[in-house]
Amino acid sequence: MTEAALPSPLLGGVRDAVRATPAYPFTPIDAPIKLDQNESPEDFPAELKRLAAERMLAREWNRYPDLHADTLRHRIAEYEGWDPEGVVVTPGSNVIIKLLTEVGGIGQRVLLSQPNFSVYVLEGQLLGAALTQVPLRPDFGLDVPAMQRELRAGGPGVLYLPQPHAPTGFLDSAADLRAVVEAAGDEWLVVIDEAYHQYSGSDFRTLVRERPNRLSLRTFSKAWGLAGLRLGYALTSPELASNLQKVTSAFNVNALTQAALEVALEHPAYVQERARQTVQERGRVLAALQDLKVLHAHPSQANFFLLRTPDPDRAYRFLLERGLLVRRQDKQPMLQGCLRVSIGTPEQNDRLIQAVLELDRA
Amino acid sequence: MTEAALPSPLLGGVRDAVRATPAYPFTPIDAPIKLDQNESPEDFPAELKRLAAERMLAREWNRYPDLHADTLRHRIAEYEGWDPEGVVVTPGSNVIIKLLTEVGGIGQRVLLSQPNFSVYVLEGQLLGAALTQVPLRPDFGLDVPAMQRELRAGGPGVLYLPQPHAPTGFLDSAADLRAVVEAAGDEWLVVIDEAYHQYSGSDFRTLVRERPNRLSLRTFSKAWGLAGLRLGYALTSPELASNLQKVTSAFNVNALTQAALEVALEHPAYVQERARQTVQERGRVLAALQDLKVLHAHPSQANFFLLRTPDPDRAYRFLLERGLLVRRQDKQPMLQGCLRVSIGTPEQNDRLIQAVLELDRA
Repeated sequence: MTEAALPSPLLGGVRDAVRATPAYPFTPIDAPIKLDQNESPEDFPAELKRLAAERMLAREWNRYPDLHADTLRHRIAEYEGWDPEGVVVTPGSNVIIKLLTEVGGIGQRVLLSQPNFSVYVLEGQLLGAALTQVPLRPDFGLDVPAMQRELRAGGPGVLYLPQPHAPTGFLDSAADLRAVVEAAGDEWLVVIDEAYHQYSGSDFRTLVRERPNRLSLRTFSKAWGLAGLRLGYALTSPELASNLQKVTSAFNVNALTQAALEVALEHPAYVQERARQTVQERGRVLAALQDLKVLHAHPSQANFFLLRTPDPDRAYRFLLERGLLVRRQDKQPMLQGCLRVSIGTPEQNDRLIQAVLELDRA
Repeated sequence: MTEAALPSPLLGGVRDAVRATPAYPFTPIDAPIKLDQNESPEDFPAELKRLAAERMLAREWNRYPDLHADTLRHRIAEYEGWDPEGVVVTPGSNVIIKLLTEVGGIGQRVLLSQPNFSVYVLEGQLLGAALTQVPLRPDFGLDVPAMQRELRAGGPGVLYLPQPHAPTGFLDSAADLRAVVEAAGDEWLVVIDEAYHQYSGSDFRTLVRERPNRLSLRTFSKAWGLAGLRLGYALTSPELASNLQKVTSAFNVNALTQAALEVALEHPAYVQERARQTVQERGRVLAALQDLKVLHAHPSQANFFLLRTPDPDRAYRFLLERGLLVRRQDKQPMLQGCLRVSIGTPEQNDRLIQAVLELDRA
């Protein structure tokens, strides 16, 4: 009998919430065209990679990195026009979601719309928050009155508001967003997750700046083309930042990522240009898939879109057989039959369009 | 009035335990000779740095890294002679301490000896564990009967057993350690923190392997000379590993660190040789400081030692004025007057010996 097969009571130290939670739902699959993780389809520019490698080599790898990545935080602050004391960096924005749950979720509430990005819910469940998921409207917008009711029913807790939403790609009107944010008052930590904002052209820094309990969550994993380096950041008040910093593991951004990101922030011009290309490609793909017979491509303000199919298992396999890896989302409420498809390079998108049209006729 | 100066009630979402906790006690100070963080005094070998950079450049930075760093986990498993399913990797072993607190500490107990490494206590406080700190014996060894009493008083919870201990450098006898570990039964997660084991020559993998609720915590930040890259790992049972993996943020080890660590694990010969040099230097330094008049250098099995002084503030400044940065530990119980000093290169250690002898006479 291996250790893995020993009965659970032997691991009596493991909390029930952890034991009961399934593992993160992701199984890596190799495919020529990866449209499953909403990454940038292009690598960090080659000349910047070389610059970054030089800078990494010049640093001492045997020394702990800068405790709170101060240089990097200051560069981000400069880029975003933000107070550096209000910037928190972590190895991926999913880590900030864990920290927010630690700061404001344990034994308190976590409120979010549904369908949503699984990590908000997962961290809340694992860490013992009371979770409330409010269904989106049929058009995928926030149900403002329902969210307001939940907020006014009382915190304290954490409120997540992705803009645009994942996995739907929907962007709420500024008025709807504000109506929900203001109902949160001062009793909630209000998180506007702007991971995909470069593709929607939206920017809620002004709304965040109005109160110290508000936070914008951003990432280098999408428009910056640096998912492999793992860097997410929060823009918030110095007061909330200092509380998040307390739960942040010391030295959490390694020296290599700090060096590479400093280089990226010295050469940010490529980001807007690439986002523009992706937005243009998104328009082209959605236009090409507008008049499908059986399938339906949902509009989106992000670098991905939902493809609704009558048989998601078959559709997923059909695309994979043609080299296209996408992500199933059909287990989420309101998303019956849906696959999530990232926007790729023009060539990849051509292949996608062709395959989807073929599937629609099959 | 800046946002930072707004009164606390506006951040009603922040839990009391977080609000009440001070920030991580570390202020970076520049000094020519850094003996304050127990790092390796030598960088990762230059030719391996170049190899690592080449491997990093060959990867796609726009793609998410391997979810659980499978290749790296398998290399570590091979190096350690461990089941890969029982290996968990995180960006620094301090992150595993957070994860252990999430898995077994929230609303449960955390038991440890005192003085100790501050992160065990900090995570327990922040996440809402009931903390019990049992004083070490006057020689800094585990108080076995007292630890056994606490364990038998009941879990569930997490038990930390550093071997050797930080910040004292003391290594318990194998019999003492076993007596405590066995008293924990199956109700506790038993963590043997072996961050410094290469300097003590100790290795408790056999003890860990006996039961699935035991775990050895190891790091690349010390003997491997890679503190800047942030990689810690746990060796445990597949069952406990799978529960830790659930609370591990997805994609948490970035692509650059994965590439560099794979290179390190292909060329591990330098590690033993460097550890041997450090142990030899430790012997030389402690011998040179054996017969001090006022100060006292404690014996150690790690790459640092405690220097007890009548006036730690003065001693700290005296050393700093001579270019030597050390770490104050005098606020911890039993460590009145103590500074913690890392073993450096032979030249650095010469400077240290000279300065300490001078301070002792001053």
